[in-house]
Amino acid sequence: MKITILGCYAATPRSFTNPTAQVLEMGKQLFLIDCGEGTQVQLRRNKIKFSRIKHIFISHLHGDHFYGLVGLVSTFRLLNRENELHIYGPKGIKEIITLQLKLANSWTNFPLVFHELTSKEPEILIDNEHITVSTLPLKHRVYTNGYLFREKEGDRRLIVDEARRLNIDFTLFKSLKKGKDVVSEDGELIPNHLVTEDPPEPLSYAFCSDTVYDPELVPLIANITLLYHESTFLDSEEKLAFPTKHSTAKQAAAIAKAANVQKLLLGHYSTRYDNIELFRTEARTIFENVLLADDGMEIVVE
Amino acid sequence: MKITILGCYAATPRSFTNPTAQVLEMGKQLFLIDCGEGTQVQLRRNKIKFSRIKHIFISHLHGDHFYGLVGLVSTFRLLNRENELHIYGPKGIKEIITLQLKLANSWTNFPLVFHELTSKEPEILIDNEHITVSTLPLKHRVYTNGYLFREKEGDRRLIVDEARRLNIDFTLFKSLKKGKDVVSEDGELIPNHLVTEDPPEPLSYAFCSDTVYDPELVPLIANITLLYHESTFLDSEEKLAFPTKHSTAKQAAAIAKAANVQKLLLGHYSTRYDNIELFRTEARTIFENVLLADDGMEIVVE
Repeated sequence: MKITILGCYAATPRSFTNPTAQVLEMGKQLFLIDCGEGTQVQLRRNKIKFSRIKHIFISHLHGDHFYGLVGLVSTFRLLNRENELHIYGPKGIKEIITLQLKLANSWTNFPLVFHELTSKEPEILIDNEHITVSTLPLKHRVYTNGYLFREKEGDRRLIVDEARRLNIDFTLFKSLKKGKDVVSEDGELIPNHLVTEDPPEPLSYAFCSDTVYDPELVPLIANITLLYHESTFLDSEEKLAFPTKHSTAKQAAAIAKAANVQKLLLGHYSTRYDNIELFRTEARTIFENVLLADDGMEIVVE
Repeated sequence: MKITILGCYAATPRSFTNPTAQVLEMGKQLFLIDCGEGTQVQLRRNKIKFSRIKHIFISHLHGDHFYGLVGLVSTFRLLNRENELHIYGPKGIKEIITLQLKLANSWTNFPLVFHELTSKEPEILIDNEHITVSTLPLKHRVYTNGYLFREKEGDRRLIVDEARRLNIDFTLFKSLKKGKDVVSEDGELIPNHLVTEDPPEPLSYAFCSDTVYDPELVPLIANITLLYHESTFLDSEEKLAFPTKHSTAKQAAAIAKAANVQKLLLGHYSTRYDNIELFRTEARTIFENVLLADDGMEIVVE
């Protein structure tokens, strides 16, 4: 899987930093997560093909997480998009976008499907052959969801040379990949484990922004591969975190540790900090495997 | 007066061009005209102090002219603005902005005053000691206004040395500036013209975007100092101009010539053109004094 950080700074866009937006590539699909002002330009800068985006997930209706959405939808229209576009986000998102399209007298020429969220419990949004996507209810100043993306376990990996050596007809390879034992051309029963290996470990990604420190999140993201958890503040500003319903780097690390995730990716830094390296230093006092998001960064996990 | 071009390209923002937004400085005030996506970042790049903007004029509700407005309003809030902000634009602009603020649960902490426009006749929006601002009804695919900014004639310029030589008491200088004759300390009547000069010629600026070629505009902008007129297309694409209700460079020049303006400023170029110099070449076949807008450009007229 690959995550491209289009923007990972809190609050207001600046000439050198962008508000939240990320592209996740998983199971051959692209998912856009949040869409702050300027996201469409960041997509171009990062050479992401607009037409590959079919699903957009909005965490909450604060401007730094969705003000770029209406512009992106309009640009899809200018690009003569024909494919469906699915937008998941809090109730209200449909009215915001359609009001603006209506007043501009510019309806989309592609199906624009809104999936408005209201539940405070986790919900499965997508469940197909390759992946599931579900919500992660977060606690912020307004109704907010994180999103959890999980690959499904793939087929077993066939050791082709071994299968041939044991004289297994190739029409049985599919059964082997599904974990079945087969009978060779020589009439011998071949136990599956002799000619296959375990499939690659399914990867998983959780996007958690914006949120106050919330241990209730831990069981929902236990043992995942990569956790993006907001860290708006450093511990020195911890007194600001609770009233604004944000987290510190230390709190993000505590969640990562409690959930036993493989890696923690920090972001949503307040623009008051000049040196984001301080976030890593602070988080590492609690959890070792910390990455710092930054605009334009690509994170590949295999 | 000074015009700073924050963006002057049509349709969709790209990594190297911005949609429409300009800042006009006239009569010691700053006016923001249109506010495409990314305008707040362009304001920062061009070092324009956010707090000096008290009036924003939106021409029409196509995204490339206003999608940056809600973000700018939100940033004013984050910057703890206290001064009134006046927004002039088509009916609907208030609902678009307030819906988004409401759903984000983030009302402004400063008075946000909407002046929604519906008239198809020119209207005076601001009339103070220094300037007037009025609408210029334009013909586009949706309800659209250009804006006309006119300085008022200032006081006469006092020739201080001459006034002193003629022994005029300084308490009479104000009367002289207002064009009155005065009596000197020696009891002589001093005709005003002996000690004053004409005030500087009042400047004027018309912003006309987006619009189809429309000769009805000519009397409204006759003899102005500087005309910004959209030129989305070159003459080679003239067949696209009428159906999309845009203009060509040639048509913009024809309006400038008929209105006898001093200078023509072209912009709102379709992103299909790589070389905007072609717009100047084409316009100059009809009207000599042509400037090409480009993002980040400042035009000073004295």
